[in-house]
Amino acid sequence: MTTYRAETIEILKKASTAAITGLLLKRHGFRMRAINGVRPIDLANCRFAGPAFTLRYVPQREDLSVSGDIGNPNNAMLKATQQIAVGSVLVMDMMGNGSVGGLGDVLTTSFLARGVAGIVSDGGMRDVSEIAALGMPIYCKGPAAPPSPSALMPIDIQQPIACGGVLVLPGDFIVADNDGVAVIPAHVADDVAEQVVDKELMESWIRSRVAEGEGVYGLYPPNEANLERYRQWKSSRS
Amino acid sequence: MTTYRAETIEILKKASTAAITGLLLKRHGFRMRAINGVRPIDLANCRFAGPAFTLRYVPQREDLSVSGDIGNPNNAMLKATQQIAVGSVLVMDMMGNGSVGGLGDVLTTSFLARGVAGIVSDGGMRDVSEIAALGMPIYCKGPAAPPSPSALMPIDIQQPIACGGVLVLPGDFIVADNDGVAVIPAHVADDVAEQVVDKELMESWIRSRVAEGEGVYGLYPPNEANLERYRQWKSSRS
Amino acid sequence: MTTYRAETIEILKKASTAAITGLLLKRHGFRMRAINGVRPIDLANCRFAGPAFTLRYVPQREDLSVSGDIGNPNNAMLKATQQIAVGSVLVMDMMGNGSVGGLGDVLTTSFLARGVAGIVSDGGMRDVSEIAALGMPIYCKGPAAPPSPSALMPIDIQQPIACGGVLVLPGDFIVADNDGVAVIPAHVADDVAEQVVDKELMESWIRSRVAEGEGVYGLYPPNEANLERYRQWKSSRS
Amino acid sequence: MTTYRAETIEILKKASTAAITGLLLKRHGFRMRAINGVRPIDLANCRFAGPAFTLRYVPQREDLSVSGDIGNPNNAMLKATQQIAVGSVLVMDMMGNGSVGGLGDVLTTSFLARGVAGIVSDGGMRDVSEIAALGMPIYCKGPAAPPSPSALMPIDIQQPIACGGVLVLPGDFIVADNDGVAVIPAHVADDVAEQVVDKELMESWIRSRVAEGEGVYGLYPPNEANLERYRQWKSSRS
Amino acid sequence: MTTYRAETIEILKKASTAAITGLLLKRHGFRMRAINGVRPIDLANCRFAGPAFTLRYVPQREDLSVSGDIGNPNNAMLKATQQIAVGSVLVMDMMGNGSVGGLGDVLTTSFLARGVAGIVSDGGMRDVSEIAALGMPIYCKGPAAPPSPSALMPIDIQQPIACGGVLVLPGDFIVADNDGVAVIPAHVADDVAEQVVDKELMESWIRSRVAEGEGVYGLYPPNEANLERYRQWKSSRS
Amino acid sequence: MTTYRAETIEILKKASTAAITGLLLKRHGFRMRAINGVRPIDLANCRFAGPAFTLRYVPQREDLSVSGDIGNPNNAMLKATQQIAVGSVLVMDMMGNGSVGGLGDVLTTSFLARGVAGIVSDGGMRDVSEIAALGMPIYCKGPAAPPSPSALMPIDIQQPIACGGVLVLPGDFIVADNDGVAVIPAHVADDVAEQVVDKELMESWIRSRVAEGEGVYGLYPPNEANLERYRQWKSSRS
Repeated sequence: MTTYRAETIEILKKASTAAITGLLLKRHGFRMRAINGVRPIDLANCRFAGPAFTLRYVPQREDLSVSGDIGNPNNAMLKATQQIAVGSVLVMDMMGNGSVGGLGDVLTTSFLARGVAGIVSDGGMRDVSEIAALGMPIYCKGPAAPPSPSALMPIDIQQPIACGGVLVLPGDFIVADNDGVAVIPAHVADDVAEQVVDKELMESWIRSRVAEGEGVYGLYPPNEANLERYRQWKSSRS
Repeated sequence: MTTYRAETIEILKKASTAAITGLLLKRHGFRMRAINGVRPIDLANCRFAGPAFTLRYVPQREDLSVSGDIGNPNNAMLKATQQIAVGSVLVMDMMGNGSVGGLGDVLTTSFLARGVAGIVSDGGMRDVSEIAALGMPIYCKGPAAPPSPSALMPIDIQQPIACGGVLVLPGDFIVADNDGVAVIPAHVADDVAEQVVDKELMESWIRSRVAEGEGVYGLYPPNEANLERYRQWKSSRS
Repeated sequence: MTTYRAETIEILKKASTAAITGLLLKRHGFRMRAINGVRPIDLANCRFAGPAFTLRYVPQREDLSVSGDIGNPNNAMLKATQQIAVGSVLVMDMMGNGSVGGLGDVLTTSFLARGVAGIVSDGGMRDVSEIAALGMPIYCKGPAAPPSPSALMPIDIQQPIACGGVLVLPGDFIVADNDGVAVIPAHVADDVAEQVVDKELMESWIRSRVAEGEGVYGLYPPNEANLERYRQWKSSRS
Repeated sequence: MTTYRAETIEILKKASTAAITGLLLKRHGFRMRAINGVRPIDLANCRFAGPAFTLRYVPQREDLSVSGDIGNPNNAMLKATQQIAVGSVLVMDMMGNGSVGGLGDVLTTSFLARGVAGIVSDGGMRDVSEIAALGMPIYCKGPAAPPSPSALMPIDIQQPIACGGVLVLPGDFIVADNDGVAVIPAHVADDVAEQVVDKELMESWIRSRVAEGEGVYGLYPPNEANLERYRQWKSSRS
Repeated sequence: MTTYRAETIEILKKASTAAITGLLLKRHGFRMRAINGVRPIDLANCRFAGPAFTLRYVPQREDLSVSGDIGNPNNAMLKATQQIAVGSVLVMDMMGNGSVGGLGDVLTTSFLARGVAGIVSDGGMRDVSEIAALGMPIYCKGPAAPPSPSALMPIDIQQPIACGGVLVLPGDFIVADNDGVAVIPAHVADDVAEQVVDKELMESWIRSRVAEGEGVYGLYPPNEANLERYRQWKSSRS
Repeated sequence: MTTYRAETIEILKKASTAAITGLLLKRHGFRMRAINGVRPIDLANCRFAGPAFTLRYVPQREDLSVSGDIGNPNNAMLKATQQIAVGSVLVMDMMGNGSVGGLGDVLTTSFLARGVAGIVSDGGMRDVSEIAALGMPIYCKGPAAPPSPSALMPIDIQQPIACGGVLVLPGDFIVADNDGVAVIPAHVADDVAEQVVDKELMESWIRSRVAEGEGVYGLYPPNEANLERYRQWKSSRS
């Protein structure tokens, strides 16, 4: 299991996915590290962060999926409820199928009881009113009443998966906010955390200048003169 | 016209689409009985139920669709406004085309005046602010300003249709809630109604156990011992 | 630059996109003049109108897009911030790509400072919470954290573009409300403005009749007798 | 049943779908009268023409579709085999589902025995090698082994349908060649037939001029001087 | 590794995917056991059969995929070339991505040298002319020049996968012909083999009757009287 | 206009798109430089190469597109027929719309007369039999009978465009073969040409080794020892 420095975790929990994906592109060359096509069940509760615990689905087969799979001790979803660590984010590869619901209120309650920080799926979710009431932050494709065995079955945990078109490795650091869900490769999380606070501060300073009427040119991105202005402003405020 | 037992209607009006689609799969082998790709115009007013009255669209043709179709006594939409029964749910097969609006505030007012319980379409809707204000609960693909003759025309009523990928027969029982829209084949509605109250009660009991810290294994789905615990709890509370 | 009569602008700012697209179809034969697949960042702030200023994107190429394009004096987005006129609507052809964000809070602040009336894009937007707080009304495909150079680059301004499947020419009149975004060809804007007030009044009168229990037939669309009733009602109220 | 003049039928059987759809657009304002997304089973045998006989499918339901539907005397496919007229083209609305096969070699043999001129479906076909050997010209989405009850069921005949995104009315005149399948509204078939021979002759004359090195400007479309050249050439050759 | 009876293998190698998927639906209730959206590289060489050896891809990440992955001893594609058994069918889950090529002529040569019976992928293939010349039968989404690390990377072998929307377990029996690719669950392969010869014979007899002018009703599917005719014909010919 | 060294052109005309896209990825970091979703009109005539001449379409508008656009001296398609240089490849951005045909036999004849090397479009083509007979190699989405003004109109030439999801700049070097169409940025064409002959020779040598039974490991990609074997073989054959 990937472990992160405490300060990395604390910073990333407050960082924006816009700033994070910007750094991933410009410093590390990672073009697409945000999960596509998902939205929060509760817009007012969609901020969460933590290491990824992955769960993979495959298409159902009539003789394998109708019966109560979770009653089987080898069921991958059951294992997820038993093995996921406190503070983790459950990331579910439902093959982008939003017509069925991967979790309902019972399993969500179970993950809440385990101390899960949040859930991301590129499939649907059931019992979305109850889930919102429970307070578990979830990004998914949208509400879907039918149980997942109508179309899919969970097959393994903690394997590399695709979620919303993006590779997620177990232990990658997940950050979600109003702009969506970013996936930070574990080995660059410290670097991102080290850069992101200053990046957000600088963009906030730039935005104030633009609001005061300065043109974007030379300011965003800043040329050397404006970088110097920013540094002086920054040192003056501390 | 399919008629339903009064108690069936009363129960299904309060039942969740998650529980209903679960029963349809596990007891009756119906895999996909929820309308895909639709969302409510007003999240705060999306609970409704009733027998389906169907309306089918086909692609427009330039010489058939521009003029005021509803002014023609044989127009299928006009017939729908004249023939739909109190308490019914209008289900519109707009071929999944969300770029045009099937209904605006005038026709919605007409259906409200007929006592229609709710409307489902796999196309778009116009005048969505006004519709929300009128209080008609509607599930559709989303708002769309253009009038439907831009792309489609209504062609017949009370025929078998597809809506959101699912067969809807006239008289099927429709139930909508925050998770979406379920379509119950008429001949199993009584059975679903008979089972759904206990299913929801049991899942609620299971969820409480999980919230108290019990593991999912053996509980969801319940093994015989836990079924017995549930039955005792249930009899103790009555 | 297209100029519009002051009264045309005033009327269209209050007109509904449903009425406008209806007139465009029935009077002018324009079938599809609404931008598809977009939704407001803030449902409570999605009403805006003005002449279109267009910005076109093309797919990125690794050697052209990573670096800070806006720092280049020839960058098309930079030019947009410098050349767009007060009261205009920025219309962005992002090729329908909702996986990246075309604007964040800095550039939105810049357009606010220029007096831009609103923004429409068939791509994504970053910093959507901040944008909502700034008060700029935006229609787009949805939130997206990654910066646009991950997939796209702005290439030119004030050229004919496609946005949401619809041709937008510089200077076309854009109107947005809860039903979406209509694109009025410049040469018919006066005619639409002249017709739309009466059309909305008549539909409101029809709706009242339907709410009182009259059938739709002969009323919507109105036959000659009902047109006459409407005209009398209209003259009586003035 | 629509009846056509013998000469109309003879001309349209030899006309190209490119010329026909061109005339439908320019003379009659019909923008999209070609079935989208279909291709021939046998490229060497894809020329056919005749009045449409329509067959409509809806999504299957588990209790309605597995058993041998065609054994039921009310089955719509069975009725099609019994009622379709000699020289007709069977047009199947399979909802664009190319994952299942609507016809195999047995039913194709049955339609061949009825004297059917050709078949168009926006779904899949089974036994495509055998169908090619039988010599029945078919346009469809492609080969698909699974029987159609896996996903669909035939529901009615001779109703208005959508096929490949286009309205097809029973009796519309269907023409297929290497460019695809055109659908001519019955009431303009005579006019199209009257125009198409000269249109094709003129385009052939234009093409010869272009091949000889003349520029396209003024020639395609021809200005008055070139129209006169064409007319003289035409009269000189007769 | 699943082992099959020699006679099962021999029969299935000659059986049609149309008959196989028909039996899977009617006798076993398996609705969708054909791989969707794939076509042969060489129509004249698309008949193959054998047990599935599975290979799974996930989306690439810039730091993991550019370099020569196959040079890594743990690379999943390399392992596939080393571990796949004679007579197997390689089934590749490329997430339906047809824009990159999973195999080129070098790797295909390697699989040919291992005695692989055929290859199925829901992604693209490179060097398709060379592959056709080598004689390896392949079903895939189509030709695609770019190497797969542009978008994907192989991640594991012999795990349950999705291919063309269908679950494929290692050892499932794969059959390909002109109608596509069927996936037979291992435990029903013997039953399918036992039934398929008679099913094809009976359909051939029915087709002959239909070709002679008999109606489909009562014959396809056969009623008891026609079943008896068939049985007599069958016994008379042996 | 970009000019290329004669030897670069000669080499690239014979190089494979698989090798070219491989070099673009591995040496230059260009991930996706092949046009997606296109196929040749004539498989036996799909090899061509040359600098790109670009033509861009936008969605039609009813009042702009029905009439004979090419008769207008400012029409972009007309300009293309007048300005494209000998040996160029016409690349058409039809917004991926395969339901209409961008070129028919007349315009194709015109481009043949100009000495155009080949044509690529992400839309449809009309008169495909005639085009195949004329001998012009074309990659497109497929045949489509309707004239392009049904849905699109040409708007400008020699601007940056998207074709099949890929940026094409005027003057980029286009290479087409059986695997599809590669787009080489002009400034790396010389480098690609310098590398591609040896790359293809080495892969051919590797393939021979694999065909003789050597394993892929260490050979593809070659380790240092195998690189040395290759170099010796290469020098021995000259």
